[in-house]
Amino acid sequence: MVSHTAEIRVRYAETDQMGVVYHANYLTWFEVARVRMLEAAGLPYPELESAGYRLPVLEVTARYLAPARFDDSIHITATPLSAKGARIEIGYEVRCGEKLLCTGRTLHAFVGHDGVPKRPPDGFAGRFGF
Amino acid sequence: MVSHTAEIRVRYAETDQMGVVYHANYLTWFEVARVRMLEAAGLPYPELESAGYRLPVLEVTARYLAPARFDDSIHITATPLSAKGARIEIGYEVRCGEKLLCTGRTLHAFVGHDGVPKRPPDGFAGRFGF
Amino acid sequence: MVSHTAEIRVRYAETDQMGVVYHANYLTWFEVARVRMLEAAGLPYPELESAGYRLPVLEVTARYLAPARFDDSIHITATPLSAKGARIEIGYEVRCGEKLLCTGRTLHAFVGHDGVPKRPPDGFAGRFGF
Amino acid sequence: MVSHTAEIRVRYAETDQMGVVYHANYLTWFEVARVRMLEAAGLPYPELESAGYRLPVLEVTARYLAPARFDDSIHITATPLSAKGARIEIGYEVRCGEKLLCTGRTLHAFVGHDGVPKRPPDGFAGRFGF
Repeated sequence: MVSHTAEIRVRYAETDQMGVVYHANYLTWFEVARVRMLEAAGLPYPELESAGYRLPVLEVTARYLAPARFDDSIHITATPLSAKGARIEIGYEVRCGEKLLCTGRTLHAFVGHDGVPKRPPDGFAGRFGF
Repeated sequence: MVSHTAEIRVRYAETDQMGVVYHANYLTWFEVARVRMLEAAGLPYPELESAGYRLPVLEVTARYLAPARFDDSIHITATPLSAKGARIEIGYEVRCGEKLLCTGRTLHAFVGHDGVPKRPPDGFAGRFGF
Repeated sequence: MVSHTAEIRVRYAETDQMGVVYHANYLTWFEVARVRMLEAAGLPYPELESAGYRLPVLEVTARYLAPARFDDSIHITATPLSAKGARIEIGYEVRCGEKLLCTGRTLHAFVGHDGVPKRPPDGFAGRFGF
Repeated sequence: MVSHTAEIRVRYAETDQMGVVYHANYLTWFEVARVRMLEAAGLPYPELESAGYRLPVLEVTARYLAPARFDDSIHITATPLSAKGARIEIGYEVRCGEKLLCTGRTLHAFVGHDGVPKRPPDGFAGRFGF
């Protein structure tokens, strides 16, 4: 199991006039946890890019259960859900303390710098237990 | 039918180092089209807020089909998909010229300023043909 | 004189929990007007990049006089202030109706894709009346 | 002396197609360090807001010396420069390792929720050594 949990503090810039975090910012938080998770699995994203890969988002879903507020300490857990061919699917849970604020999922493809799908690095799926 | 299409130009700030628009920004573009659609339906969002409503996002999904690039002229079409009780579901199509770049969907609830679900304004669903 | 005025509508994403536009977003609005101004002067930014130029911001200043609010129609005027060597200085005025909300200034350098200063395109300064 | 240094990792969302951090994002980083500095001085920003204060930005300046890149570990130091009447001025230095990337300054006013200047909390200036 290679879940990874990242911690952030909510920035004022991330709030909107409802007094809570604007919903699109959770996708950036997903990214923060995803990058840390790849790093923890020995596949730092900057190295993937240097090796000629990109990992664009093909699909994203998010469900918002409770709002995050300015200065909250937020934990975002990223968990690889599947990896087959050039694709990887990742799940997310966003919490403030015990409270679950948001769940989500992203689907990515390994592509080259030309945007064309590309076979992932050797042993990639294995690093995530697949 | 009360679809509404908004037009924007891609900002440099919206790109990332892949040289294309960062995926989370499409959610803000959905918002731009949604706000214009509500306005066109006679329910300007600022008036909804003045009348004690908020319309937070409960769920969002997006599928990315092709990238948007800096300075592209982008059309975002928002279409109400359903409205029942205090909820409204909206679909989105993002295009550059004829090319479909992204599709998406958001689910919203009418709530009061306390965050508690609230009966929508009279005739709300009817304005969207439901 | 080659001032150029761009118009935008304030996005919900651009507000913060003070109920007004978050101050950093004005810098993005400056960018919107700057890009349109360069385009109007016959130097579209995408073409500058294709020709091997980049135009990073070296300095920025902004003074905030009155807040912008969600859905406001905002006019941003960009005016070239000086151009010498590889540098160009641009001034900004942000208005809602007659009301002046913000003034600012950016200083840029023409650089190559390697980040090294580069002689601007021929006739560059002349296009801005310098 | 009540300088405070905050640490962040650069997010992919913060880069632009030049392959470096978009300049407006440094203002958000200034905010991150400012909030931590106020907290360290015993004036957490959320408590200031609960006590009826807001601290909008009146002026900002930034000088960009070298670019920040994706995944860099960035240190932002905020230092109070002056505090008189309802105003406070704060200076910033942004570093990656030893390298100075950006310097800046913000000027703020204490205002009430109505936007009108308001006498700062007792002992405010003293907390910053003024």
